[in-house]
Amino acid sequence: MTILENIRGPHDLKALTESELDELAEEIRQFLVHAVARTGGHLGPNLGVVELSIALHRVFESPVDRLVWDTGHQSYVHKLLTGRQDFSKLRGKGGLSGYPSREESAHDIVENSHASTALGWADGLAKAHQVTGADGHVVAVIGDGALTGGMAWEALNNIAAAKDRPLVIVVNDNERSYAPTIGGLADHLATLRTTDGYEKVLAWGKEMLQHTPVIGQPLYESLHGAKKGFKDAFAPQGMFEDLGLKYLGPIDGHDIAAVESALRRAKGFHGPVLVHCLTEKGRGYEPALADEADRFHTVGAMDPLTCEPLARSNGPSWTSVFGEEITAIAEERPDVVGITAAMLHPVGLARFAERFPERVWDVGIAEQHAAVSAAGLATGGLHPVVAVYATFLNRAFDQLLMDVALHGCGVTFVLDRAGVTGVDGASHNGMWDLSILQVVPGLRIAAPRDADQLRAQLREAVDVHDAPTLIRFPKESVGPAVPAVSRVGGMDVLHREGARDVLLVAVGVMAPVCLGVAELLAARGIGCTVVDPRWVKPVDPALAPLAAQHRMVAVVEDNSRAAGVGSAVGQALRDAEVDQPLRTFGIPEQFLAHAKRGEVLADIGLTPVDIAGRIGASFDRIDGSERSDRINGDGQVGRSDRSDWIARMESAAAARAEEQA
Amino acid sequence: MTILENIRGPHDLKALTESELDELAEEIRQFLVHAVARTGGHLGPNLGVVELSIALHRVFESPVDRLVWDTGHQSYVHKLLTGRQDFSKLRGKGGLSGYPSREESAHDIVENSHASTALGWADGLAKAHQVTGADGHVVAVIGDGALTGGMAWEALNNIAAAKDRPLVIVVNDNERSYAPTIGGLADHLATLRTTDGYEKVLAWGKEMLQHTPVIGQPLYESLHGAKKGFKDAFAPQGMFEDLGLKYLGPIDGHDIAAVESALRRAKGFHGPVLVHCLTEKGRGYEPALADEADRFHTVGAMDPLTCEPLARSNGPSWTSVFGEEITAIAEERPDVVGITAAMLHPVGLARFAERFPERVWDVGIAEQHAAVSAAGLATGGLHPVVAVYATFLNRAFDQLLMDVALHGCGVTFVLDRAGVTGVDGASHNGMWDLSILQVVPGLRIAAPRDADQLRAQLREAVDVHDAPTLIRFPKESVGPAVPAVSRVGGMDVLHREGARDVLLVAVGVMAPVCLGVAELLAARGIGCTVVDPRWVKPVDPALAPLAAQHRMVAVVEDNSRAAGVGSAVGQALRDAEVDQPLRTFGIPEQFLAHAKRGEVLADIGLTPVDIAGRIGASFDRIDGSERSDRINGDGQVGRSDRSDWIARMESAAAARAEEQA
Repeated sequence: MTILENIRGPHDLKALTESELDELAEEIRQFLVHAVARTGGHLGPNLGVVELSIALHRVFESPVDRLVWDTGHQSYVHKLLTGRQDFSKLRGKGGLSGYPSREESAHDIVENSHASTALGWADGLAKAHQVTGADGHVVAVIGDGALTGGMAWEALNNIAAAKDRPLVIVVNDNERSYAPTIGGLADHLATLRTTDGYEKVLAWGKEMLQHTPVIGQPLYESLHGAKKGFKDAFAPQGMFEDLGLKYLGPIDGHDIAAVESALRRAKGFHGPVLVHCLTEKGRGYEPALADEADRFHTVGAMDPLTCEPLARSNGPSWTSVFGEEITAIAEERPDVVGITAAMLHPVGLARFAERFPERVWDVGIAEQHAAVSAAGLATGGLHPVVAVYATFLNRAFDQLLMDVALHGCGVTFVLDRAGVTGVDGASHNGMWDLSILQVVPGLRIAAPRDADQLRAQLREAVDVHDAPTLIRFPKESVGPAVPAVSRVGGMDVLHREGARDVLLVAVGVMAPVCLGVAELLAARGIGCTVVDPRWVKPVDPALAPLAAQHRMVAVVEDNSRAAGVGSAVGQALRDAEVDQPLRTFGIPEQFLAHAKRGEVLADIGLTPVDIAGRIGASFDRIDGSERSDRINGDGQVGRSDRSDWIARMESAAAARAEEQA
Repeated sequence: MTILENIRGPHDLKALTESELDELAEEIRQFLVHAVARTGGHLGPNLGVVELSIALHRVFESPVDRLVWDTGHQSYVHKLLTGRQDFSKLRGKGGLSGYPSREESAHDIVENSHASTALGWADGLAKAHQVTGADGHVVAVIGDGALTGGMAWEALNNIAAAKDRPLVIVVNDNERSYAPTIGGLADHLATLRTTDGYEKVLAWGKEMLQHTPVIGQPLYESLHGAKKGFKDAFAPQGMFEDLGLKYLGPIDGHDIAAVESALRRAKGFHGPVLVHCLTEKGRGYEPALADEADRFHTVGAMDPLTCEPLARSNGPSWTSVFGEEITAIAEERPDVVGITAAMLHPVGLARFAERFPERVWDVGIAEQHAAVSAAGLATGGLHPVVAVYATFLNRAFDQLLMDVALHGCGVTFVLDRAGVTGVDGASHNGMWDLSILQVVPGLRIAAPRDADQLRAQLREAVDVHDAPTLIRFPKESVGPAVPAVSRVGGMDVLHREGARDVLLVAVGVMAPVCLGVAELLAARGIGCTVVDPRWVKPVDPALAPLAAQHRMVAVVEDNSRAAGVGSAVGQALRDAEVDQPLRTFGIPEQFLAHAKRGEVLADIGLTPVDIAGRIGASFDRIDGSERSDRINGDGQVGRSDRSDWIARMESAAAARAEEQA
C-alpha cells in the first residue's frame, strides 16, 4: 500500500516523518495527474497546493478548526487527505464534486466556486466563534489572483479592524489566477517575492539552523520569530501591516517544514495574521509548467503523457466563434475595445488582445470593475465588449444596472457558459442572467441559436451606442446551423406545420429541442409554429399578435424558469390583452448537482419528450379532447425515453461535426 | 450682488483673490444651510467640500477635464459653481437633482448614487482618453468611507497598474462615511492623519514659507515637492505607494491654497496620483459638527437655527418599528446578531448595537461583505440580520445567492427604503429586489402591509434556520393597521364583496391602494376579493385555487413590473393549469426621475383610479359587456383625479397618525 492509501483522515498525517511526507507529496502528484487526466478537472491549481494542504492538515485540526478554501477548485488534495480518494467519477453524476461539498465531508465548508469569498466567510466564522465561545481556529486559503476581487478587500478591511480576533489568512501566491495576476497588488506581491537578498538570507538561515539540534522549539522557528528585524530591512510587506494585519512571509510553499513552521506561529497569534506562501501552479507536471496560456488550469479527459484530448471535439466552440468575430469587428472598428476579468483565454479574447494589445484590458478577478470601467470607457467614446462567464456576471449586476444602463452606455456584455454547464456544479451554471436582467431598462439581450446567429447578433449588438446589449451562449461546441423558414417582426420562424395550435418560443440553443417538441406534437396531431425571437429582451412586438393566432403558447429556455423569458413573454401577452394559455419551460428554482449537461437537462425535464408530454397534456385539457397516447399525457415518461433522446442528440451532433470538418 | 451670484461657471473663479475665495466659501456655506434647510437634502457632506470644490474648479478645466464625484450627494457646491444656483426645488419634481445629473449640466458625468464607483469610472475614462488621444485630465473625488467598498479596491488595483496613465484621485477624508468609517483602512488613514509631528511640521513650514516672497513657483509648493524625505520620516503612507500610487498628503482640505497646490502637482504628474485631503463633515454649521449620530448627513426641511423639522411626522417610521422589534428579539435570542453596511442609524440598528455592542457589526460600505460574512456567522451557529437599503442589496446579489442561499444559511435580510423612495432619484429607488430575488432557491420574502405585520413577520423570519429570509418595507412613516377579515392558506383576506369577479393580490404597502381599487370597482358593479399574501415568495399554494374561483386576477406591487411578484403569480397559476386572465401592476421598466413618492406613483399609474380603470376595461372585455363609465374605461383618467387621491391619502394618513399619537 502507498502512503496515500493509508491516509484515512488528517490525523494519519501526524505520525509521518519528513521523508514520508515528501514521498506522500510525490504520490499525490502522480495520483492527481493520472486521475484528472482520466476524468478532466482542475489540474494546475491542485498540483500547486500539495505541500500547503499537507501542512495545513498537520498544523490545524479540521473540522474543529475551520479550513475555508477560496475558489474551491484547489481542494482536491484536501479531499485526498480527508478520506476521499475515489476520483473515478470526479465531477460526474454521483461522483466527487470538483469543489468542496458539505454533502461529501464535514471537512468542507464553502461550496461556492466564485472567487474571493473565503475571507468574508472566515470573518463571519471568526466572529461567530467569538460570540459563541466555540473552539477552533479559522483559516482561509486564498490565491493571489482572488485577492484582486473587491470582496477580498472588504473582508481584509474588516478582519484587520479586530486586532484581538484570531484568523489565519494563507495567501497561496502562484503569480497567476487563471492568467498572470494583474494590477498594483500583483506588483506589490512581486516585490515581496523578489526583493533582493531576502529569500537568499532565509534559505541560508534555514539550512544552517535545521542542522543545529536544539531542545524544544526548533531554532528555525525561533529565527522566524526573531527575524522581524531583518525581514523589514529586505521585504516591504508594508501594505498588509499598514492595514493592521500581522504578516509572515514569504514562505516557500513547497517546503512542508517551512510552511508548518509559519502556520504554527500564525496559529499561536491572538489576532489576524497573513501567511504569504509562494507556490508554483502545475508543480511537478512539466506540460503544465511549460504552458504560458495556463491551459492546464482545467483540463478535459486527456492522455497524461501526450496531453492529447481523449474525446473528439464536436466542431468549433461558441467561444472560438465569438473570439474570431470580435477580432474581425475590432479590425473594422477602432472604437471597439475588450475587457476580461482574469480569463483572457477562456472567454475568447486572446486573439483580439494579441492583435490589439492596447485595446484589451484584463482587470483581474473584478467583475464589478469590468462593468463600471466599461461605463467610463463608453462615456469616453469607445464601445467596450465585456466578456465573462454567465455565472460571474451576478457580481456586476449593480454596475450593469446603475452605471452602464442608467447612463445609457453602449457596452456589450458577452456571456460565455450560459445555461446548464453541468460538471462544475451548482455555482458554475449560468442560469440566472435572463431572469435578473429583465429589470434593466434599455438593455437588449440576444440568445443566438447557432454560430451564424452569434456572428450576426454580435454585430447588431456593437452597433447599439446608447444602451447596453448582451449576448449569451453555452459552453462547448456550437451545433449545426438551424435555418429559418421565414421572419415575423424581428423573429425567425423555424418551423410551421399543421393547425395553429401551439406557438413554441425557442430561446437560443433550445431551438433544436423545440423542433423536436414540434415533431413529437405533430405525431399527436397538434400543429406547432416554432419561433426564435433572436432578441429575447425586449419581447418582440410581433410576438403577441402571433400568439393571438394560436390556441396556446409555450416558452422554452436554458435559464431559471423563475422570472425568465417565459415570464417576460407572459407580461407582454397580458399587456396586449392576449390571454392565450401559456406554459413555460426552463430550469426549476433549485441548485443543480454536478453531472453532464445532457444528464442535468434530462433530470430537470428539458428534453423534447418531457416538454412535448407536458404541452400535450395541457393542450388536451384546453382542447377538451383526448388524443392517442404516443406520449404519456401526464408527463411521466420513462427514463429510457430520455436517455434515448440524449444519445440521439449527441450522436447527431458528432455526425454533423464530422461533416463540417 | 454676492460673489457667489457672480459665479456663472468655473472660469469666474479664476480671477478671485485669496480673500474673495474665503468670502465665497463663507457665502456658499450660508447658502447651503439655508437652501437645504428649506427643501431637505444632503447637508453635512456638502459643507465639508466647499473649499475642495472651489480648488478643483480653479485647477482643472471642467468639462474638458472630467470631474467624477463619488456618491454624488457631495456635488451641491459643484452645482453652485457650474451655473446652478436655484435650489428652491432641490430634489423636487422639476427642480435640481440631489445628485449629479447629465440633463442639468455638461459638468456632470456620473449620476449613480451608490458609493465607491468613481474610481472605476475614472479608470475607464482615463483608458478611453489614452486610446482616443482625447484631451483632458480625469479626476475622481471619493470619500474615505467609500474606499471601504470592494469596487474601490478593484479600481485602485487597476489604476495603479498603469504607471503612465494620468489619473488624479482625491480622497476626501472626513473620518466618517455615514457613521465613522470602519476597518483597517480607516485605522491606516487615521495613522496618516495623526502621525505625531508631521502635521505640525507641515503647518510650520507652510506658515514660514508663505511669508517668504519668491520668484515663480511658491516656496511652499517647492517644499511639498521636496518634502518626500521628511514626510516619509513621519507619515507611513506606505499602503498606497505599495500599490504603486503616488501619494500626496495629507492636505488641509479647508485651505484652498494648500489644496490647489497639491492638485497642481497632481495635475502635472504623468501617472496615477492620490491626493489625501482632510475635511470636516458639516464644517461651519455648529449643529452638524456637534451631532455624533451624523443626523445632518441628510436632513428634511427644517428651521436652520433650531433644527426643528418643519413638517409634522406622520407617526412612527417603518425603520423605528423594525429597530424596536429587532432589539426585543435580541433580548430573547442570544443567537441573533446584526450587520449594517455603514448605516447603523439609518437602518434602525443603533438601539440593538447600544444594547448589545458585541453582537452588531458595521462592515463599512461593503454590502458584499455584509452578506458573505453573514453566511459565515450563520454557519458558526448564529442568526444574522442584515439591514440595508433595498437599492444597495443589488451589490450583494451574488453573495445572497451563492453564499447564503446555496449553503442554506439562516440569514434574515431587512430591506429599508423598498419601492419608490422618490426624492433621491433613479438610483435610490428600491424597486428591483422582488424581481432579481425570484431566482434564489429557498429564499422566503415578506412584504408587510403595516407595523403589526412587520413585527410578526420579522419574528417568523428569524425562526427560519435553514434558508435565507427577507423583509422589505418602504421609507417614511408606517400607515395605520390594515385588518384582515379572514385567512386562506398563509394569506390574509382583506376584503370580500360582491361576485367573485376579480382577485386582487396586494403586495405589502399596496394593500390600501388595492382596497381603494376594490371600492372603485364595486361602484362599477365588479366584485373583488383583496388578499395580502404576506409572504410573496414562494407564492402561497392556496393562491391558485383561490384564483380559479375568480374570473380574473390582478397583482399590485411597489416594485418593477418586470419579473416581479406579478410574474411569479403568473407562473404559479400556469403551473396549476389555472388560466384565468392576469393583469400585473407595478413600476414600469424605466429609471424614475426624482419627485415625491406620491407624485411618482401618480405618474406611473399606481393609484386606485388608474388601476381600477385598467382592470375595469380588461374585465369588461373579458366579460363582453359595457359598464357605466364612472371610471374611464381606457385608463385615461384626468390628472386632477390622481391628485385628489394623493391628497386624500396623505391627509388620511396624517389624521390617523394624530389619532395614534
